[in-house]
Amino acid sequence: MNGSLSSAASAAKERHESAAASGLQLDMSRGKPSPDQLSLVEGMLESVSPGDVRSEHGTDCRNYGGDLFGLPEARRLFAAMLDVSADSVIVQDNSSLRLMFDTVAQCLLVGTSQAGPWRALDKVKFLCPVPGYDRHFGLLEYFGVEMIPVDMTDVGPEMETVERLVRDDASVRGIFCVPRHSNPTGATYSAVTVQALASMSTAAPDFRIFWDNAYAVHHLTSSPPPLSSLLDSCEQAGNPDRVLMFGSTSKISFAGSGVSLLAASASNLSWLRGHLSKQSIGPDKLNQLRHVRFFRDLAGIESHMRRHAEIIGPKFELVDRVLEERLGGLVSSDGRPLASWSLPHGGYFISFDVLPECARRVYDLASQAGLKLTPAGATFPLGDDPRDQNLRLAPTMPSLDELERATELIADCVVLASAELQSGA
Amino acid sequence: MNGSLSSAASAAKERHESAAASGLQLDMSRGKPSPDQLSLVEGMLESVSPGDVRSEHGTDCRNYGGDLFGLPEARRLFAAMLDVSADSVIVQDNSSLRLMFDTVAQCLLVGTSQAGPWRALDKVKFLCPVPGYDRHFGLLEYFGVEMIPVDMTDVGPEMETVERLVRDDASVRGIFCVPRHSNPTGATYSAVTVQALASMSTAAPDFRIFWDNAYAVHHLTSSPPPLSSLLDSCEQAGNPDRVLMFGSTSKISFAGSGVSLLAASASNLSWLRGHLSKQSIGPDKLNQLRHVRFFRDLAGIESHMRRHAEIIGPKFELVDRVLEERLGGLVSSDGRPLASWSLPHGGYFISFDVLPECARRVYDLASQAGLKLTPAGATFPLGDDPRDQNLRLAPTMPSLDELERATELIADCVVLASAELQSGA
Repeated sequence: MNGSLSSAASAAKERHESAAASGLQLDMSRGKPSPDQLSLVEGMLESVSPGDVRSEHGTDCRNYGGDLFGLPEARRLFAAMLDVSADSVIVQDNSSLRLMFDTVAQCLLVGTSQAGPWRALDKVKFLCPVPGYDRHFGLLEYFGVEMIPVDMTDVGPEMETVERLVRDDASVRGIFCVPRHSNPTGATYSAVTVQALASMSTAAPDFRIFWDNAYAVHHLTSSPPPLSSLLDSCEQAGNPDRVLMFGSTSKISFAGSGVSLLAASASNLSWLRGHLSKQSIGPDKLNQLRHVRFFRDLAGIESHMRRHAEIIGPKFELVDRVLEERLGGLVSSDGRPLASWSLPHGGYFISFDVLPECARRVYDLASQAGLKLTPAGATFPLGDDPRDQNLRLAPTMPSLDELERATELIADCVVLASAELQSGA
Repeated sequence: MNGSLSSAASAAKERHESAAASGLQLDMSRGKPSPDQLSLVEGMLESVSPGDVRSEHGTDCRNYGGDLFGLPEARRLFAAMLDVSADSVIVQDNSSLRLMFDTVAQCLLVGTSQAGPWRALDKVKFLCPVPGYDRHFGLLEYFGVEMIPVDMTDVGPEMETVERLVRDDASVRGIFCVPRHSNPTGATYSAVTVQALASMSTAAPDFRIFWDNAYAVHHLTSSPPPLSSLLDSCEQAGNPDRVLMFGSTSKISFAGSGVSLLAASASNLSWLRGHLSKQSIGPDKLNQLRHVRFFRDLAGIESHMRRHAEIIGPKFELVDRVLEERLGGLVSSDGRPLASWSLPHGGYFISFDVLPECARRVYDLASQAGLKLTPAGATFPLGDDPRDQNLRLAPTMPSLDELERATELIADCVVLASAELQSGA
């Protein structure tokens, strides 16, 4: 153990013990908006009032009826947000995860618009950029889909690997992507990556890109990297049905009480209607109307999201500052930094890498002191981070004071875990 | 053709032609609440207001979190409505049809709590009491499930047939029932039927009763026939996992913006959690809170439903009166009444039987005159009514004036279709 780590470790141990004794209870495990963010949108609770319940075309939103694909004005509003045409997007209920889950189920049970049921295949495989979103992996695991990890880069998944796997193996049927402010790395897919995904040759006749644009307008900086349109690129490449785009307002309006979005080719939407029309009489139109009336247009959403950034931007900065102060100078005996982390342009997470074989220990130490983190490994399929190195930090929910204390504690846990590793404990 | 039908037919023809020429546009095709009914619940739009968004346990309903199975107070409220314990019921989003669809999908894809995936079977069959609900049949058809019609009686499906089919054929895995104020016949299952369903021997190890109690509290009369608890009966018969009970507030609060319910054994709920936890982060808690605050308790729901009955009861009476006036004395040449119809104690429909081979013609004649009915055949699997005899009337949505005109027109269409049949036209 080098000198600086050793002396840091004894101070860290003392603080960790005192935190554990203090009965601290903090939760940084999930990407939840803070109460302040939610208060910004409370006016939406009153945007549809008695006697004022009709859509622009006169549909009584209290009753059955209207288009299964959502209110026209809601489709227009969110088409602008996803940068697609209004007839390419449908607006549904409170969970985009459900749209993804149901779409995978539909592919398995009844097939896609281009080929038969995937359940008839011996094996179905999906590519999973890692680190990635645990709930994507969870639904694939539930359905028995084999997950193949592919490393993320700063501009998307490692495309040579992706291109080889989809070209050589017809059982590879899909990939899950968070293309903007990726969960958890914060990376945004480059135009080159988008183009490559749209045009690559696939052995499967119906390869599908599940494009979870969960953070489409969730910027922390004023000049986030641009994201080009995969729907347009797929169309131009002659693969219009390759992409299923998802989005939601879970982190724009109310988390769990927002609306979800799916954008796709006309042929995919027609395929989807076959499913939706058997599953539900229609989406919650009152909630769609609430959203349209509150936000009005894309400018309304964008100005709202700038207010979000004003609240959560300082939280990301604080985490970065505290980690830098506490861990910036520290290296392992072989000269590797104890930790590195992302500084994202948007989204909800900081991807946090520690020394190999340390992530689980950091998680456990934090838990012992009353700080709940996302479980180590969660950012990998089956919870298995082969290097046991990645953690996901979710800084949005705690207050600045809580967050400072939590981040200091995380730094202490990293120092302790690294020191243990070095000493072979 | 007998004399009275012949003379009725010429008057009917004249009125039908004049209706067709008048540009009439009426819709009695679906069970939609009327605007008056929906106005009764508009206060719910204001029952959750800014600054007042917490559940009884302090959960911030604007955010993620809380139990996947719904707010405790919502589970209590709707448990009372379904006559089950609060820990037997879960409260979900705006479509109970989706809960049924998803549950069937789960049985097919991953299996039940008692056996493996149904998709591994050569064939999956469901029993379908007829006439029945077209959307149940639609989802089974979508999934490729073979539907076996079983005749409805005044006390439920013909149980000797049901018992024989489930005993002899292990591919029979389920039955869809609307046990109270059945769609469309209005029948309520008797205690004997409920007991027989709970205790019958089934060849399938995991036979499931999809108990769609859609009209649990939707009474039109003050003393509706009682419905005993299938969940209790199944438990007592040693088949606790046999039943999946569904309900919703689609025809209590807002149609398409209500909450949905599922009640089942602890083992089935645990099975269900496996699915739900991968599909969604949680239900829309704000909407659950709206419902709890508006209705408060079962007495609140019941008094609300009495006001519904005050609005729609007269509509059912009007249809009965007009049909009786116009068709009551008329018989075919062999002495059969031209039509018979149900007079339900609740629910949303009147089941309307005409002479065999006449229902499609009545539907067509009504369409020609501008009256949209539920398509003939819709109350049977695959839209195939073997006797072409049953129509479903949905009297709730039109105003009394519209309804009178529509019912007179229906009577005229019946007279015309019957006269055509008799004359061999």
